[in-house]
Amino acid sequence: MGRKVCAIIGFGPGLGVAYAETFNQAGYSLGLLSRSGARFNGEEATNTSVRAYECDAGDPDNLKAALTSVQSDLGLIDVLIYNADLAQFGALEDVSELQFEQSWRVGALGLFAAAKALGPQMSERGSGAIIVSGATAALRGNVWTTAFAPSKSAQRTLANALAKQLGPKGVHIAYLVIDGVIDTEDTRTNFAPNEPDEFFIDPQHIAETALMLAHQDKSAWTFELDIRPFGEKW
Amino acid sequence: MGRKVCAIIGFGPGLGVAYAETFNQAGYSLGLLSRSGARFNGEEATNTSVRAYECDAGDPDNLKAALTSVQSDLGLIDVLIYNADLAQFGALEDVSELQFEQSWRVGALGLFAAAKALGPQMSERGSGAIIVSGATAALRGNVWTTAFAPSKSAQRTLANALAKQLGPKGVHIAYLVIDGVIDTEDTRTNFAPNEPDEFFIDPQHIAETALMLAHQDKSAWTFELDIRPFGEKW
Amino acid sequence: MGRKVCAIIGFGPGLGVAYAETFNQAGYSLGLLSRSGARFNGEEATNTSVRAYECDAGDPDNLKAALTSVQSDLGLIDVLIYNADLAQFGALEDVSELQFEQSWRVGALGLFAAAKALGPQMSERGSGAIIVSGATAALRGNVWTTAFAPSKSAQRTLANALAKQLGPKGVHIAYLVIDGVIDTEDTRTNFAPNEPDEFFIDPQHIAETALMLAHQDKSAWTFELDIRPFGEKW
Amino acid sequence: MGRKVCAIIGFGPGLGVAYAETFNQAGYSLGLLSRSGARFNGEEATNTSVRAYECDAGDPDNLKAALTSVQSDLGLIDVLIYNADLAQFGALEDVSELQFEQSWRVGALGLFAAAKALGPQMSERGSGAIIVSGATAALRGNVWTTAFAPSKSAQRTLANALAKQLGPKGVHIAYLVIDGVIDTEDTRTNFAPNEPDEFFIDPQHIAETALMLAHQDKSAWTFELDIRPFGEKW
Repeated sequence: MGRKVCAIIGFGPGLGVAYAETFNQAGYSLGLLSRSGARFNGEEATNTSVRAYECDAGDPDNLKAALTSVQSDLGLIDVLIYNADLAQFGALEDVSELQFEQSWRVGALGLFAAAKALGPQMSERGSGAIIVSGATAALRGNVWTTAFAPSKSAQRTLANALAKQLGPKGVHIAYLVIDGVIDTEDTRTNFAPNEPDEFFIDPQHIAETALMLAHQDKSAWTFELDIRPFGEKW
Repeated sequence: MGRKVCAIIGFGPGLGVAYAETFNQAGYSLGLLSRSGARFNGEEATNTSVRAYECDAGDPDNLKAALTSVQSDLGLIDVLIYNADLAQFGALEDVSELQFEQSWRVGALGLFAAAKALGPQMSERGSGAIIVSGATAALRGNVWTTAFAPSKSAQRTLANALAKQLGPKGVHIAYLVIDGVIDTEDTRTNFAPNEPDEFFIDPQHIAETALMLAHQDKSAWTFELDIRPFGEKW
Repeated sequence: MGRKVCAIIGFGPGLGVAYAETFNQAGYSLGLLSRSGARFNGEEATNTSVRAYECDAGDPDNLKAALTSVQSDLGLIDVLIYNADLAQFGALEDVSELQFEQSWRVGALGLFAAAKALGPQMSERGSGAIIVSGATAALRGNVWTTAFAPSKSAQRTLANALAKQLGPKGVHIAYLVIDGVIDTEDTRTNFAPNEPDEFFIDPQHIAETALMLAHQDKSAWTFELDIRPFGEKW
Repeated sequence: MGRKVCAIIGFGPGLGVAYAETFNQAGYSLGLLSRSGARFNGEEATNTSVRAYECDAGDPDNLKAALTSVQSDLGLIDVLIYNADLAQFGALEDVSELQFEQSWRVGALGLFAAAKALGPQMSERGSGAIIVSGATAALRGNVWTTAFAPSKSAQRTLANALAKQLGPKGVHIAYLVIDGVIDTEDTRTNFAPNEPDEFFIDPQHIAETALMLAHQDKSAWTFELDIRPFGEKW
């Protein structure tokens, strides 16, 4: 009781864990939603609660039910972090209609469903934040982002539409344009096995920027910012 | 036989008819796809064929079947105009998950399905054009575009991804950022009943720009251009 | 008398000549402004006049005097093409304050001076067009565009400001985002000696798009479009 | 000795003072550059130095001399805040060539000169930050920003070019897209006398975001972010 609550949709290794650690250390109770219902193994601050929920972000009813559970277990959600993403890459011939749809369901429809669930109550309270893990693909398409770019750009303009609606009611919507490869065991092993440390974005520092956004004074809110490692070519 | 073929997905009053007239007058046979299977009443040029097909652009299998019919009736499609759109407007509380999905299906999934159907054959021939009726909402969200902006931005970055893949193979993808209200009986009556003529975009002139794009030399292709009436505030 | 007049600021080999040929063939008399006062050697249409003027586009008084001469020689200018550019490339250490300034003077200040000279009279007549040869560098900076990007972006937002002011008065402002290397003797020899034909943009086709813009109906004007060769990676 | 040094180009009431207070409280010595040589009256942290310098940001030699003085008085500059701006507003007919030039000199040329002075030494040390007070006008022109938009967009793409050059050398460049009216005695009195508190951006909170940027880990740097009050229509 009395603790602020942060729900993370799309909890998982890398950025999901970093968000969890950062908001937990800042004193938030955590509701962690993931397809696998993965649990959080980080160091937990005293007096906060951390709960895991199994949920498919691309299924609106399932997602809304999980958010209801979070709120009945932990209290009203103050900060929602939308981190779900299929990261489906490929050219036109590599992507099926089903994959194209799944990519959009998890990237954009899930954010819409979460906003339907939490937007009205945050508006009523006149506070709350929804922070979205976005990508440069939100701004333009590319050869390998036939499914990913449409999903991320739908996510971004949805976030933008929400910001313009909910901002004046005191709800902060922010979109992180993450431009680079996040440092995880998976990306180190499978995606960029020969890159030096400085090639990767340390997810901890993304999470710190997200925490800053969640605490920005409403007199000077940021909707969108980019994040990339200093050596990135862009 | 020997006539170029233009398929228009989303044929209907206003811009759909203008595309049909313009490409027909330029000597194209026409395959007109619409939900209602509406027929074309314009003046038809001699020696061209015009056929109408009933089809739901938001249903990939249905759409692909209709495109197959066009090609078996009229020959290979040279120019595809993607003009389907639900134009679903509303704030977060006005839009259901189903409407959000339908908006995306007709705006973005249909373009993806059409590209799956025609992209490979256009690439093989090393020619062809896909021209998309877009909107300013593709670039940013707004209060009333909670469903429309995500649909149009997904459409735009998909078109962008297609341009980068199919362009080098000789297939021209172009995106029209239409910024303003198109002059139709419906918009005159229901949307902007008190506006002067110059408030509206004459769809005929959009269609002329589309025809120009379809005929641009591949040494100097345009991917994106905006279109608005001279008096528009933007 | 009776001929439409097109003034080209920044006449020279490549795109300047292509603009001249295209507008001349379309029946325009030409006023060609360049640093060297270069003359036009193309085939001239019957009954049009072509005159050359020596002028430094980066010097407002000089530029305005030249435009006055054009109008006294040929009549009121209907279409102004702003094609002046120093194309100064380099990293921070390569560019001096003087070069940075010169780049801006020719790219942006000259367009401002031309708009001061012609904007009011075009507004009064309720017609006219100003078409600017822009570049992708107008949208973002890069390592080698320390001087070029600031010059082109200033040029683009100036054109945008002019479009919003003069558009409602019937004056069409358009900005071409040229993305690629224009085919000239110079670029073939010095910049990209080993590239195939299809690497280059044929300036003739840029000029055709400019002519199309100059003739667009004001019900459906384009402010900005990009132009690139089909094989360009972007 | 041992204190970090922050130089603020364009120190003055409102945002300049807020930057000074925020960085001073964070333990930075301050070099304050302004046209008037204004002094800082805020509460100063113990053991830091605060010095004021008279300087015209639009005059490269003058500006570079002032930066040399800062460094000889206080030590090497760690953080440069570029806050100089003429905020020259007006339509085409309101702005002279001289004003157009002055606007650019103070907005863009001054940043270039500062980067020439400090970029190489920051690169050599592999650290440092340059943070620029930008504006939405950097992204597009408008009726009243005939001079302001070209100045701010040149500033932004210059900052972007610097970020891509100096970032890999460990120097952080960031651009604040400030979208709204900053709360100062002047804006309250002259610009928006009847607006409620929440109409204005509290400059203190802009400065806090700037401080966050100056301290971001280089694994996850932000180049650009927007800042606006929660009630702003955009």
